Amino acid sequence: MAKRAFYFDYAATTPLDPAVFRVMKPYFADDFGNPSNLYEFGRRAKEAIAAAAKKISEPLGYAPQEIVFTGSATEADNLAIAGVARANKAFGKKIIISNIEHKAVLATCDALREEGFEIEYLRVGHNGLVKPRDLERALDEKTILVSVMYANNEIGTIQPIRELAAVIKKFRAKAARSTGSKNRTLPYFHTDASQAVQYLDINANRLGIDLMTLSGHKLYGPKGIGGLYVRRGVRIRPVIYGGGQQDRLRSGTENIPAIVGFGEAVALAQKHRKTESARVKKLRDTLQKGIFEAIPKVVLNGHPTKRLPNFLNISILDIEGEALLLYLDELGIAVNTGSACNSESLEPSYVLTALGNPYEYIHGSVRFTLGKGTTIVAVNYILKHMPRIVTKLRKISPLDLKMGQKEAMSQPRAFVGGQTPHFLRKKKV
Amino acid sequence: MAKRAFYFDYAATTPLDPAVFRVMKPYFADDFGNPSNLYEFGRRAKEAIAAAAKKISEPLGYAPQEIVFTGSATEADNLAIAGVARANKAFGKKIIISNIEHKAVLATCDALREEGFEIEYLRVGHNGLVKPRDLERALDEKTILVSVMYANNEIGTIQPIRELAAVIKKFRAKAARSTGSKNRTLPYFHTDASQAVQYLDINANRLGIDLMTLSGHKLYGPKGIGGLYVRRGVRIRPVIYGGGQQDRLRSGTENIPAIVGFGEAVALAQKHRKTESARVKKLRDTLQKGIFEAIPKVVLNGHPTKRLPNFLNISILDIEGEALLLYLDELGIAVNTGSACNSESLEPSYVLTALGNPYEYIHGSVRFTLGKGTTIVAVNYILKHMPRIVTKLRKISPLDLKMGQKEAMSQPRAFVGGQTPHFLRKKKV
Repeated sequence: MAKRAFYFDYAATTPLDPAVFRVMKPYFADDFGNPSNLYEFGRRAKEAIAAAAKKISEPLGYAPQEIVFTGSATEADNLAIAGVARANKAFGKKIIISNIEHKAVLATCDALREEGFEIEYLRVGHNGLVKPRDLERALDEKTILVSVMYANNEIGTIQPIRELAAVIKKFRAKAARSTGSKNRTLPYFHTDASQAVQYLDINANRLGIDLMTLSGHKLYGPKGIGGLYVRRGVRIRPVIYGGGQQDRLRSGTENIPAIVGFGEAVALAQKHRKTESARVKKLRDTLQKGIFEAIPKVVLNGHPTKRLPNFLNISILDIEGEALLLYLDELGIAVNTGSACNSESLEPSYVLTALGNPYEYIHGSVRFTLGKGTTIVAVNYILKHMPRIVTKLRKISPLDLKMGQKEAMSQPRAFVGGQTPHFLRKKKV
Repeated sequence: MAKRAFYFDYAATTPLDPAVFRVMKPYFADDFGNPSNLYEFGRRAKEAIAAAAKKISEPLGYAPQEIVFTGSATEADNLAIAGVARANKAFGKKIIISNIEHKAVLATCDALREEGFEIEYLRVGHNGLVKPRDLERALDEKTILVSVMYANNEIGTIQPIRELAAVIKKFRAKAARSTGSKNRTLPYFHTDASQAVQYLDINANRLGIDLMTLSGHKLYGPKGIGGLYVRRGVRIRPVIYGGGQQDRLRSGTENIPAIVGFGEAVALAQKHRKTESARVKKLRDTLQKGIFEAIPKVVLNGHPTKRLPNFLNISILDIEGEALLLYLDELGIAVNTGSACNSESLEPSYVLTALGNPYEYIHGSVRFTLGKGTTIVAVNYILKHMPRIVTKLRKISPLDLKMGQKEAMSQPRAFVGGQTPHFLRKKKV
């Protein structure tokens, strides 16, 4: 418990809320039925799913039947992207996404490219924002899907979802007029809200989205569960086939305890989102201010204000992010980094790369993400120790970067990995 | 607990073993880290996965790296079938499966047919067995995959996996000689062992299989977890794309508590499989004998001896399975039926249909599947009440079937649903 207080990686995963665990518990060994069955055990399992769906639907403003429970947010992204693409290919084969989407979206699009789909990337600016005008230019008759995440998982930058939805709506109306059709629903608009659910309004109608990905383990719910909101009428195909559960959209025996916990977690997150946003924002701002005051040559990654209240992603020049990570770990502090050594592909963060900073900046990137367990004690603990560690690391560093540098000083290969961003490379299997 | 004693649907799902729950518990809120991360929380999560994989690999005789954790056995089947098909289409586009495979296999094959794959069905005999000679005839140069389940989920019939593997091995050797190649690994052999793990030897080498599907919630492990054994060297592509977890084969943050529980459940199941097999077989035989003695006009579905020890699937002529199901449910007894009303598609069981019995037989089918909670008290309780209920139902029945009847008396439509089996119909989406 003491250790958990110094956990600053809530964007990676969160501990299960004891209150969520309590509602899940009866479904492991007591109400363990398979909802496909007619007898009492089965009926109770079915009712549990319906109740969870209702809990999620209320704050999100849609009908309970419009949520599909998946095995992860990654699967929900796959279902949204590949499911919509394959079901609508007769109408067009173009998909528009930002170049800082989650890998679940990027890699699914890579796979779809092999099936003949065309992917167009909206390049974010230095602050990490997608420009509505870029979307306007990219939209065409062939476009069947636009996917832009609600808030980025590395820098926390919040995208202008409402504005993007308005652009799409305008395009649909214009296209409908030009073809003389009464109604046009394409392109659909999908957003991955995995990081956003705890802190932002996710009412699907207010946002103007057709599909939305949710994650269980990012909001103190269980791992192994995600959800996809699918607005009624959206043409979509499954990616997992079988017994035809969940209106044929996602086969496999429903994971009742996880669904029940997920429902509770979403409800709790939305219930407390305003107070919790204010609380973590204050702590995050204290942390940010403290670091910038105590440590020279630090750069903020992402947008300074259009940002989730629990995110702080910085580049500390002249140090290695993973070295800092390991030193902090020794003190019981858990943080993340976008530097190459932290990724399975041994490449520096494509998100930070997309912001246009030189590789050396990314090399020293550190992501702090705060959460329910974060206190001022933990923030002060970091502020007490970090300057000393940074000074130590800088003493042994061969680098001496300038602030505001735009060009890489060295070949990116010096920092392991190639320079081709993941989403432009051909998929290896 | 009293109620659970009368649960006779262990093939649908099982309660979580308290011993399994105990090993899972620390990973919900304490060791909750994301295994992708370098700090201590992350490393411990990674170690937990490795330990679970090792637990599964030991009784199954393979290397821990050869298991992929999925969100369900259905997903594992999808990965095995679609993943192998798409990765090997350059070598051929034919897949051979039995006509009583689990819907996860059948429906995935339906989807693959739309991608240009050819599916050949091996038709089982009246006893539910695939004939090795049929496989021999079906194999050809274009065949890239054979999938035959280890034991069927409706009738419990155990397929001759070793003999089928020998047929495939012989074919590979012959094909290699004729093309002058040194080694031929295609077609791969996949088996869905979801129902078998508790009762049968599942050593991959002894069985001669290349891929094997396992399920968590069928063996007192958690729901929402499955596994696919993939022999090293098998060419396979993911069905879910993203962060590249699990050697790029299944993206998504690993579900640590479920993986840990799954490992423990498989280990326990294999450890106790011989004693538990003998125990449930004795109870099942008592139940079977008692029913056949007390109730006239009952037909056994599936093979009388080549059958999982916990399975009893019968057709009680002149009654409706779901009526019996509901009467038994009132007594707290949970059973399953293959009659139309129990399926989402409102069609009678395609497995029982494949055995060649008339629709009226299937209409009165009841499946009892026993498990760890089953006692002689529960068996006697059924034997006490069932004959009376059957007599009552027969009194109001318009049917009067003959034993050994091979022809349907009426149009199958009378029993709801069409007559085209699911696996021959075009997939609706």
